[in-house]
Amino acid sequence: MVEKRTPLAIEEAVRKVMNFAKNGLKEMVPIELAYGRMLAEDIVADQDVPAFDRSPYDGFAIRSEDSIHTSTENPTIFEVVGEIGAGSVYPKEVEPFQAVRIMTGAQIPEKCSAVIMLELAKEFQNEGKNYIEIKRSYKDGENISFRAEETHKGMVLAKKGMYINPGIVALLATFGYSQVPVAKKPIVGVIATGSELLEVNEALEPGKIRNSNSYMVLAQIQKAGGIPKYLGKFSDDFETCYTEVKKALEQVDILITTGGVSVGDYDYLPAIYQKLGASVLFNKIAMRPGSVTTVAQLNHKLLFGLSGNPSACYVGFELFVRPCIKTYLFNETPHLKRVRARLGENFPKPNPFTRFIRGKLLYEEENLIATPSGFDKSSAVSSLASTDALIVLPGGTRGYEKGMTVDVLLLEDREGSQWPWYDFVPSYR
Amino acid sequence: MVEKRTPLAIEEAVRKVMNFAKNGLKEMVPIELAYGRMLAEDIVADQDVPAFDRSPYDGFAIRSEDSIHTSTENPTIFEVVGEIGAGSVYPKEVEPFQAVRIMTGAQIPEKCSAVIMLELAKEFQNEGKNYIEIKRSYKDGENISFRAEETHKGMVLAKKGMYINPGIVALLATFGYSQVPVAKKPIVGVIATGSELLEVNEALEPGKIRNSNSYMVLAQIQKAGGIPKYLGKFSDDFETCYTEVKKALEQVDILITTGGVSVGDYDYLPAIYQKLGASVLFNKIAMRPGSVTTVAQLNHKLLFGLSGNPSACYVGFELFVRPCIKTYLFNETPHLKRVRARLGENFPKPNPFTRFIRGKLLYEEENLIATPSGFDKSSAVSSLASTDALIVLPGGTRGYEKGMTVDVLLLEDREGSQWPWYDFVPSYR
Repeated sequence: MVEKRTPLAIEEAVRKVMNFAKNGLKEMVPIELAYGRMLAEDIVADQDVPAFDRSPYDGFAIRSEDSIHTSTENPTIFEVVGEIGAGSVYPKEVEPFQAVRIMTGAQIPEKCSAVIMLELAKEFQNEGKNYIEIKRSYKDGENISFRAEETHKGMVLAKKGMYINPGIVALLATFGYSQVPVAKKPIVGVIATGSELLEVNEALEPGKIRNSNSYMVLAQIQKAGGIPKYLGKFSDDFETCYTEVKKALEQVDILITTGGVSVGDYDYLPAIYQKLGASVLFNKIAMRPGSVTTVAQLNHKLLFGLSGNPSACYVGFELFVRPCIKTYLFNETPHLKRVRARLGENFPKPNPFTRFIRGKLLYEEENLIATPSGFDKSSAVSSLASTDALIVLPGGTRGYEKGMTVDVLLLEDREGSQWPWYDFVPSYR
Repeated sequence: MVEKRTPLAIEEAVRKVMNFAKNGLKEMVPIELAYGRMLAEDIVADQDVPAFDRSPYDGFAIRSEDSIHTSTENPTIFEVVGEIGAGSVYPKEVEPFQAVRIMTGAQIPEKCSAVIMLELAKEFQNEGKNYIEIKRSYKDGENISFRAEETHKGMVLAKKGMYINPGIVALLATFGYSQVPVAKKPIVGVIATGSELLEVNEALEPGKIRNSNSYMVLAQIQKAGGIPKYLGKFSDDFETCYTEVKKALEQVDILITTGGVSVGDYDYLPAIYQKLGASVLFNKIAMRPGSVTTVAQLNHKLLFGLSGNPSACYVGFELFVRPCIKTYLFNETPHLKRVRARLGENFPKPNPFTRFIRGKLLYEEENLIATPSGFDKSSAVSSLASTDALIVLPGGTRGYEKGMTVDVLLLEDREGSQWPWYDFVPSYR
């Protein structure tokens, strides 16, 4: 009567899913809308930066050779023959002992080879002409930002798949990307299953709970970079459910169902997968929570059956769905970033399976401390509010003690990682 | 000719700005749109969680007292008299040595006091009736999630001003918030100044550069939680500029200008502030880059004059504008989060002023290492791409060595901090 399921190693499960993860499409958006998206192409410098020798300060451009013999005792006087605002170019040739007033960022006039900072030049007038006096010599190139000093034309400045932060927006603007090639967001559908579920705006009834998982997952989809599409609750009738899933698959790039993946009697999903002709990659994983996570694929489209238990659902999404969304977005570090931290509390109870404990990362001097978010029953919703990390405790015959170094997966990180499981942590195999 | 400006201590400058930072307004959004917003009210539990005693597993509910004498040698048999799916309630009273098949999450029938996991019950039939056999005893309350075990009605689950992450979305759904009170986003206007600026879609010209700062700042505004409004470039005519700023102030909650705050000749801003009747809070700060950041206020509306230098502009935004936007959003930790890390490279050159070096945070075992993002000329744009932290090097007569512990401000963190300057780092005063 109880369906027999063989638990798969976490690493193997992630690998099976990633075999079907694929890159999506590119689209162009105006630069104003590029923040927070993922680059669909490498960003290449279309010019040197600076594009010309320029002044890093407000001051006076001179020929450095005219200043060679200058000292406090032997000051040198230059005639100020003109000025250049930022964005303009000095049209004439600068003669010996002439200076040109120059603004920050303006192009150095030809023949000039140094800039005197405004504060170090004593300005005066004589017979209607402007002069400056300086009291030290300047080296060739002093106070000049040289052409291509920062970036050469043709250089790759940001890689395809990178998250577009404000710094990358600055790069895009500098190099003329008024339209930006970004990854198209995948549409990720969510269907809730479970006759115990009430909608958020419904009043509580005996034995029922409000549907929190779907909304949580919709937010997780957005966070991962997808477009969430809530497709509602499953009906109680098998044929209707089957039709709903079939229709949903035509509208979405990835489909998630929450609930109904346990070994309980009322679970239609296995039968639906079978009728669709979807192949089940796995339906049990050697982990807690989330052991009943099921993943299937139909024509290379992934169907995720996440547990109805809130924290199992949360963890299942982050470990399996998130990397698929990130891969769709061309990201090459699609998995949660793994760091090492000291455990902030004892975990005396041993568990044969690897556990993912919701926690909070604290910084204590230059060390990281990972502290479980209090009460951690696998159904607890409230501790998710302040969670920013999953503490990974590999299964085994012993518990864990405060101060031990453990793996932690970051939930609020932008960088991600390539493959956190296999190479580093053989115990997950 | 050179305007005399007295540099203000960073901490004092932040304090002066924060005197004028104010909370904004509340608005209601449907729960589907709440992710990523800030809570405008505390979230309070409108019910206990669980709202009823429930089963954490698929199994059989029994009266635990019936199992007292059970052992491998002395198994006990229960008659299975019914079943409860999740969301339904068992209508009858359970008699001695009766069991009810129960699904995960379903309400425990009255009189029952323990749940036998499905895997531990041996099911069999006899004369058309269903039975289970168990081989150990169960304690009162075993495998039951009790009412209010996780959350009591009336408990504050998430505080006003908190960032709404997927966990908080789950809470909102659980407690019936189909409409969510969130902070209204402030409109933050950006005007670029500088006749050297080309628009992003314009071809390069001698002496000119593309306007990258404005777009960078627009992204920083979005990142901080504001609505960016690009108001274009200043004209070259004073009266037109004045009118532009005056009009802009009517449309925005906060106004930023980039460029034109140095001591150069072509800077209209001081005159504009004067003509508006705005009071200048400061126009020079004892820091690098960003020393020429100017902040003024008019009728308690803040006007930020950020430097035209990209990294000074970036740092000026994060230190001064960001906390004002976050405060508008009710956030009580509006400043960048400060952590301690080991310096990843030597910084031999001493500087009388506190420096903010763009850098990358690396995790090496459980230690944090902050490494400068390579070439850090204050005008460098390219190193901003991978920056996720600002390394703070207080001014002084000595440089810094690799391995020293330094303060680092996190740029990709969601949590923020209350007041990172004063208490911890007296040298910034």
